[in-house]
Amino acid sequence: MSAIDHFWAVIPAGGAGTRLWPLSRSSSPKFLHDLLGSGRSLLQGTYDRLSPLVGDRLLVVTGSAHRPDVVAQLPQLAPEAVLAEPSPRDSMAAIGLAAALIERRDPDAIIGSFAADHVIPDPSAFAAAVRTAIAVARDDWLVTLGIEPTSPSPAFGYIRLGDQLAAHHGVQIAVEFVEKPSATIAASYLATGRYRWNAGMFVARPGVLLDLLAQSHPYFAAALRAIAEAPNRLAELWPTLPKMALDHAVAEPAAAVGQVACVPASFRWDDVGDFDALAALRGAPSTTTVIGDRDSVVSVDANGLVVAGSGRLVAIVGLDDVVVVDTPDALLVTTRAHAQEVKWVVDRIKDAGRDDLT
Amino acid sequence: MSAIDHFWAVIPAGGAGTRLWPLSRSSSPKFLHDLLGSGRSLLQGTYDRLSPLVGDRLLVVTGSAHRPDVVAQLPQLAPEAVLAEPSPRDSMAAIGLAAALIERRDPDAIIGSFAADHVIPDPSAFAAAVRTAIAVARDDWLVTLGIEPTSPSPAFGYIRLGDQLAAHHGVQIAVEFVEKPSATIAASYLATGRYRWNAGMFVARPGVLLDLLAQSHPYFAAALRAIAEAPNRLAELWPTLPKMALDHAVAEPAAAVGQVACVPASFRWDDVGDFDALAALRGAPSTTTVIGDRDSVVSVDANGLVVAGSGRLVAIVGLDDVVVVDTPDALLVTTRAHAQEVKWVVDRIKDAGRDDLT
Repeated sequence: MSAIDHFWAVIPAGGAGTRLWPLSRSSSPKFLHDLLGSGRSLLQGTYDRLSPLVGDRLLVVTGSAHRPDVVAQLPQLAPEAVLAEPSPRDSMAAIGLAAALIERRDPDAIIGSFAADHVIPDPSAFAAAVRTAIAVARDDWLVTLGIEPTSPSPAFGYIRLGDQLAAHHGVQIAVEFVEKPSATIAASYLATGRYRWNAGMFVARPGVLLDLLAQSHPYFAAALRAIAEAPNRLAELWPTLPKMALDHAVAEPAAAVGQVACVPASFRWDDVGDFDALAALRGAPSTTTVIGDRDSVVSVDANGLVVAGSGRLVAIVGLDDVVVVDTPDALLVTTRAHAQEVKWVVDRIKDAGRDDLT
Repeated sequence: MSAIDHFWAVIPAGGAGTRLWPLSRSSSPKFLHDLLGSGRSLLQGTYDRLSPLVGDRLLVVTGSAHRPDVVAQLPQLAPEAVLAEPSPRDSMAAIGLAAALIERRDPDAIIGSFAADHVIPDPSAFAAAVRTAIAVARDDWLVTLGIEPTSPSPAFGYIRLGDQLAAHHGVQIAVEFVEKPSATIAASYLATGRYRWNAGMFVARPGVLLDLLAQSHPYFAAALRAIAEAPNRLAELWPTLPKMALDHAVAEPAAAVGQVACVPASFRWDDVGDFDALAALRGAPSTTTVIGDRDSVVSVDANGLVVAGSGRLVAIVGLDDVVVVDTPDALLVTTRAHAQEVKWVVDRIKDAGRDDLT
């Protein structure tokens, strides 16, 4: 597999992954963890998947606090390839900054943005979909990869598909981006066969992306391009950027005017959003999956997911689908069915002033 | 309330309480813990209940390893009132040694033996039953206190009652001691109205107890009396004593020949045998009961029992009747319904060579 000319990868590495608390914290977010037990963190796995497609044309955008960890995990990267956000301003600012920098460096660039904390077990299928997306993006579309849903999950956003593109067989217009629906509504989506999961993967010319942003948020796009022109203005301009997700800032308005294309992708994808998803990725049903030291877990008439992260012995007795996450300063006990509620724990801890634990 | 002439209390303080692991360990058994949140350990609670009845006529018999803890928890006791067993030889040896010592010191003594790790919330009702038992014991009976069952529990042994004693109104012959039955059999016992829970509480003249022992195990009784006569023979003779529970060594054979009386007692009693019993004692249903630092527990859509014993934050989410016992080196997660299975964990840990945790 050879790198694709002028193709640049952007990896926004952010988000605390609060539904994976206490394993994932703002101080040690999901993308830094080897959740698959592969010996590579999710960030490293993302790099491994993209590197063959881009060579050294790869930028990671992360929070200042996490830049040292990112550099340590990806020593292959040149120092200037890891951009530090002065403060968290959501995905549009992060990806937009990378786009503005690449726009200046490579007039023929196509960028692809892929989150640092997603799992895609089949890199070949991923690469094939990306190649298709790049071809479409060269025709000045904002291109998204739409994942074929395997269940009516209420945990993901959805993309509604429209007409086929004449010039690109199998690629369709993305008519609408829908926020996480209820499971009932998601099931009705699946029944139509016209919806895809929105995995937040976008491919476009950087100029196309920024020009679309400029249509709805002209100051935002101008400020990003100003920083790229004069990087010493970063500290001055960054705090003035709106806090917006790329979906809201660009993808939804662009879809509304018919400027977004969707490459249907059938590879397996997961954002490992909670411990139920992690258990499904890691273990067989009705067994006890251990992340960490297997010898420190005793399971009697029980099954589920145990994160053995404190060195202590963990015993589970008489529980099905239990989730036990044992860390040196915090312990979570829940079930796979209640995995989404873990975010409320983080809220409660913040309310109690224990920011040290979040 | 004044002390009862010649009445001596014996408190056997032993047993690891493995179904309360990892809170209770062989290195830190149940009787040393303040399981009720009263500010007093179960041992101290037992002392508090007996002290008004006996003044300073009280002996604690415990393992050598626990003697320092017992002395520290009961500084009121004279050093010679805390007997250290050279090795564990079960309850007959422990109580029999105390009986033999008291037999020599007070020819008119009545002894009452009461385990160090039981809970009796009403000391007045307990004292009244003990006074009745002492009156019967003065007529040379081996007397047991039979607890009125509140449920067909399979966790306790049972006493079958026979005829009334002519000389003591309301006191009955104890015809038979039955080991822990099934719940079905226990229910059939309760239906007859002729069974009581065996709480292991015995009252007798020490000479009567030892003479009964001599009938079935003459060497055992002789060896105990020899140690009492020459305490320097303890190290020599102790290892030769049979390992037997008092129930098997004396109570069952004596009941078979009609020499045991039972004082029916209606006070609430519990041996806090497992976390289900502890949760029932400590908390209201459908609430989360915390033993330890309440502020370190976050409960979201959950209820049960949390022992917060490591200083870490403990979060429980979406679980009913969960039991979480968090200690510095071991963690248990189970449910109240599975509390009896905790002993299997201890077996598994021993099999794995982790005696440091048991």
